[in-house]
Amino acid sequence: MTRSFPGLSELKELGHDRLSKLAEEIRTFLVREVSRTGGHLGPNLGVVELTLAVHRVFDSPKDKIVFDTGHQSYVHKILTGRAVDFGTLRKAGGIAGYPQNYESVHDLVENSHASTALSYVDGLAKSFRLRGENDRTAVAVVGDGALTGGLAWEALNNLGAGGSPVVVVLNDNGRSYAPTAGGLADHLAALRSGEGTGTTLFELLGLGYLGPVDGHDTAAVEEALREAASRREPTVVHCVTEKGHGYVHAENDEADRMHAVGAMDPETGEQKPGSGRSWTSLFGDVIAEIGAEHEDVVAMTAAMLLPVGLGRFAREFPERVIDVGISEQHAVTSAAGLAMGGSHPVVCVYATFFNRAFDQALMDVALHGLPVTFVLDRAGVTGPDGPSHHGMWDLALLGRIPGMRVAAPRDADQLSLLLREAVAVSTGPTAVRFPKATAGPAIPAMQRMDGVDLLRRSPGMPLDVLIVAAGVTATAALEAAELLESEGLGVTVVDPRWILPVNPVLVHFAARHRLVVTVEDGVRAGGMGSALREAVSDTRVTTPVVTLGLPKSFLAHGDRATILRACGLDGPSIARVASASIPALPEGAPTSAEATR
Amino acid sequence: MTRSFPGLSELKELGHDRLSKLAEEIRTFLVREVSRTGGHLGPNLGVVELTLAVHRVFDSPKDKIVFDTGHQSYVHKILTGRAVDFGTLRKAGGIAGYPQNYESVHDLVENSHASTALSYVDGLAKSFRLRGENDRTAVAVVGDGALTGGLAWEALNNLGAGGSPVVVVLNDNGRSYAPTAGGLADHLAALRSGEGTGTTLFELLGLGYLGPVDGHDTAAVEEALREAASRREPTVVHCVTEKGHGYVHAENDEADRMHAVGAMDPETGEQKPGSGRSWTSLFGDVIAEIGAEHEDVVAMTAAMLLPVGLGRFAREFPERVIDVGISEQHAVTSAAGLAMGGSHPVVCVYATFFNRAFDQALMDVALHGLPVTFVLDRAGVTGPDGPSHHGMWDLALLGRIPGMRVAAPRDADQLSLLLREAVAVSTGPTAVRFPKATAGPAIPAMQRMDGVDLLRRSPGMPLDVLIVAAGVTATAALEAAELLESEGLGVTVVDPRWILPVNPVLVHFAARHRLVVTVEDGVRAGGMGSALREAVSDTRVTTPVVTLGLPKSFLAHGDRATILRACGLDGPSIARVASASIPALPEGAPTSAEATR
Repeated sequence: MTRSFPGLSELKELGHDRLSKLAEEIRTFLVREVSRTGGHLGPNLGVVELTLAVHRVFDSPKDKIVFDTGHQSYVHKILTGRAVDFGTLRKAGGIAGYPQNYESVHDLVENSHASTALSYVDGLAKSFRLRGENDRTAVAVVGDGALTGGLAWEALNNLGAGGSPVVVVLNDNGRSYAPTAGGLADHLAALRSGEGTGTTLFELLGLGYLGPVDGHDTAAVEEALREAASRREPTVVHCVTEKGHGYVHAENDEADRMHAVGAMDPETGEQKPGSGRSWTSLFGDVIAEIGAEHEDVVAMTAAMLLPVGLGRFAREFPERVIDVGISEQHAVTSAAGLAMGGSHPVVCVYATFFNRAFDQALMDVALHGLPVTFVLDRAGVTGPDGPSHHGMWDLALLGRIPGMRVAAPRDADQLSLLLREAVAVSTGPTAVRFPKATAGPAIPAMQRMDGVDLLRRSPGMPLDVLIVAAGVTATAALEAAELLESEGLGVTVVDPRWILPVNPVLVHFAARHRLVVTVEDGVRAGGMGSALREAVSDTRVTTPVVTLGLPKSFLAHGDRATILRACGLDGPSIARVASASIPALPEGAPTSAEATR
Repeated sequence: MTRSFPGLSELKELGHDRLSKLAEEIRTFLVREVSRTGGHLGPNLGVVELTLAVHRVFDSPKDKIVFDTGHQSYVHKILTGRAVDFGTLRKAGGIAGYPQNYESVHDLVENSHASTALSYVDGLAKSFRLRGENDRTAVAVVGDGALTGGLAWEALNNLGAGGSPVVVVLNDNGRSYAPTAGGLADHLAALRSGEGTGTTLFELLGLGYLGPVDGHDTAAVEEALREAASRREPTVVHCVTEKGHGYVHAENDEADRMHAVGAMDPETGEQKPGSGRSWTSLFGDVIAEIGAEHEDVVAMTAAMLLPVGLGRFAREFPERVIDVGISEQHAVTSAAGLAMGGSHPVVCVYATFFNRAFDQALMDVALHGLPVTFVLDRAGVTGPDGPSHHGMWDLALLGRIPGMRVAAPRDADQLSLLLREAVAVSTGPTAVRFPKATAGPAIPAMQRMDGVDLLRRSPGMPLDVLIVAAGVTATAALEAAELLESEGLGVTVVDPRWILPVNPVLVHFAARHRLVVTVEDGVRAGGMGSALREAVSDTRVTTPVVTLGLPKSFLAHGDRATILRACGLDGPSIARVASASIPALPEGAPTSAEATR
């Protein structure tokens, strides 16, 4: 049962009494709907009044409203006609958890990476001016947590000097996931408390500043926004909000104010327990054990201490955990500094956010041959968060970095082993990647050969197909092997464990099979398979190499297993491709099995 | 003739009279030496006294001194025993233009990308503390121009809250290449002028602030540094310097204060004219012509207006050129905003700095299918600036971005055509890359087939080798073709013009030859050749594909042609590899020529 909410024109006509009631209704709606589907609850509960005010003052889509890290756009979606769709939130074919152009003319920026909004509005405003569209305003809604990102600084520096008539709605709840890190947070706290600091950061850079205003007082926010809009110069409206506002279970959740929740009981706020253990939680235990074994290990996170599983490590080794706030570039370059000083930093980030620090990993870490370990959580297909959260670009990036060694554990045992191998490396960077998923059962190896685990070899059958499976794709590879065997094809399944650079022994294996199939849950172009094909080709081995992976495209949100299947990374699809790709046997070729080595 | 300068211990004993004289001697030495070899003159003339003071106050290598954008390290090199080597500056086998670990224990950070120093010292200081090394200090020397980079902001935010005893020597000359852009520059200008602003940016973020001090007064800088060091908390020492100080021709050079010069006459400051026209200058004319043809074209640069050739465009269309300062991330995301507003931005950066904006190109531009054109100057091997300036990673990055189309012109005519084709694209990003070099003579096509230029086909010879040459590698490919023909092999040389994604017609060509050789001046793994090999493999064409390009390693500085030859990208090397790789003809195969289509 979905109730209807006023549209944008109707909204502009409402009195403030009605608005408070509307805010309450929206909160009730959000709690009810998100408790069914899961999603970003806390951030949206915090921006109800703020979003109402923005849409009353500005005129979308003539004016352009850009939500930084678009997970705070649910209220905006409700007000732009999509309340009816909330039952499908973040499900395949349903509405996205972020703004999405095809859903509405009121959505603009689909990307969920933080700290972008100010740059977008800078560009939009400059474009309006160049085209003489002087009645349009570009509005950014940005959290204080996102201001620690360097991109936001770059934009503020330019906005301040550029004079464009943008309005920056600073949604200051004192947090990103966790409380906002750094000197900026202290400055904002001083402003919130009314202590003041003489000049604000924003004014110092040339922007106007209004506030602080109570972000849950629609009238107050509205008044400040109208004042800001009338100035026709870059102006920050500092709105103080409370993440999770109005829902007691979120307000009481000190860890992250119900930043993102799974399905839960709306009455109690209790989330349904998942079955099995997540990779993140497994990692959390292993890194804590490693912390006890290695005094030089320092864990780093960019505003995601708990989401990346560093809770236990932080409790046990508080002096050896560093949260730099949303600032992946700094996380990596300061890790380089730590390594130069003799520590072994373990930089824990979501795989998709590693994109932000490619240059630092290449130039600051790898160029100096420093022992920094990257732990890339949420690697591969993540599911409901959509194209800008899939951690699918990491292998293609890591594969370009000289000296970078990348491990992908297939099960919990391997995670424990590989992470220990990674922190034991004393020269050059390493990376360990795993998905947003529950870890499956242990997959034992028949044998380890030169670092490569042999997972299956069809007994008494010829060496037809070699499947090289990266990390968790081992399960699908083994399924494929069974299917191929039932077609009479002999299959060898190996897990290279360290998937980049290519282990030369794989080229020898390749030479003894009729076909190589590689499987990875990263973008196919430039990934593990591509590197193996190159190594095979370089040594003039003629065995064809079929590389399976994610297509080079932006994958929509949906269920992880469904997306993997759609991308051909399930057992039957792998078997089908292998079967169709195997070259004919030359005349007189041997068909009996022989050892691969 | 090289004179000797005092070593670090001797330096600490000198009186201030002697120091002034020493500063003068160093300047004379710098002008004399750099006028022979070429190099970064202006920045080093500006930091003579500052570097003397740093080395008198701090105790390298116990204390760690990190030079941001290490081109300001010549004085440091002189004081650490390398004056004698300046005749070899930036030459193959000689001393580098940046700090280099293997040259000296006093060198730490080799990377020349800007805005990193504060993050390094943050990590170093944290490492010192964790290891109980409380007598060590981490010192960053950073220019005001580099502070506009987001990475520097991320570091300041963390330094301010972290309390680490780092000393930040702010070398404020009001410039990066050009005058520093943005609100920060105005703030620093106010501080310099003594107007003050109440609180400084640095104090607002929790760092201490000392200054401004005259950066050319060694005693004053020294005193401030001693005070900063004694505080044992993060402190900025604001030194006001003049880029090019003490050399009249640099002081009078308003464009860039002789930021980087070629060999020149030290008396007149006149640089020896190069022969032929650089790609940069060709681009400068073409983009200006395009500016006249297309009102929607907006040119963007990150602090490099003149180095990327936008001088004429800026004169002719001042309202349509944007210099965002050193902030590649913002350049790209604000370009996305401009494109959303209906403009066609052309983002002009050095290829190596594109690394910094990969995430923005992927998530902010490509995810939204926006028509932004990237112009990547200094692509490929750049020569004397070494590993962090070679523009060799761009193709491997661009090749990962869905919808990205990459063009590589082989000559001036193609630059003009391809850039026009790029700005005519209305959906999705495009890139045009060219090297730091003089453009060679026109290379005419025999024919254009489905967008691919046929440059040569051995007359009356079989279809043995297909050479696919990216951009300027066409010259070496044609040389190789001649050599192969003299061995009796028939060669087809094509220039795909748009090198990524793979033009499907190339797969058809590949199928008709016995061997494909690809040639590109980017990192081989994941580049154009790798993409073509994948396309060939996907269509089950069995022609082997040999991919030639730069190795996945950090290439030292040296002469461009020499480095290319060492990497096997000259004509004879290409011919040798092709000749050795060509598979034997199957029995009864046709040997006469046939059309490729």
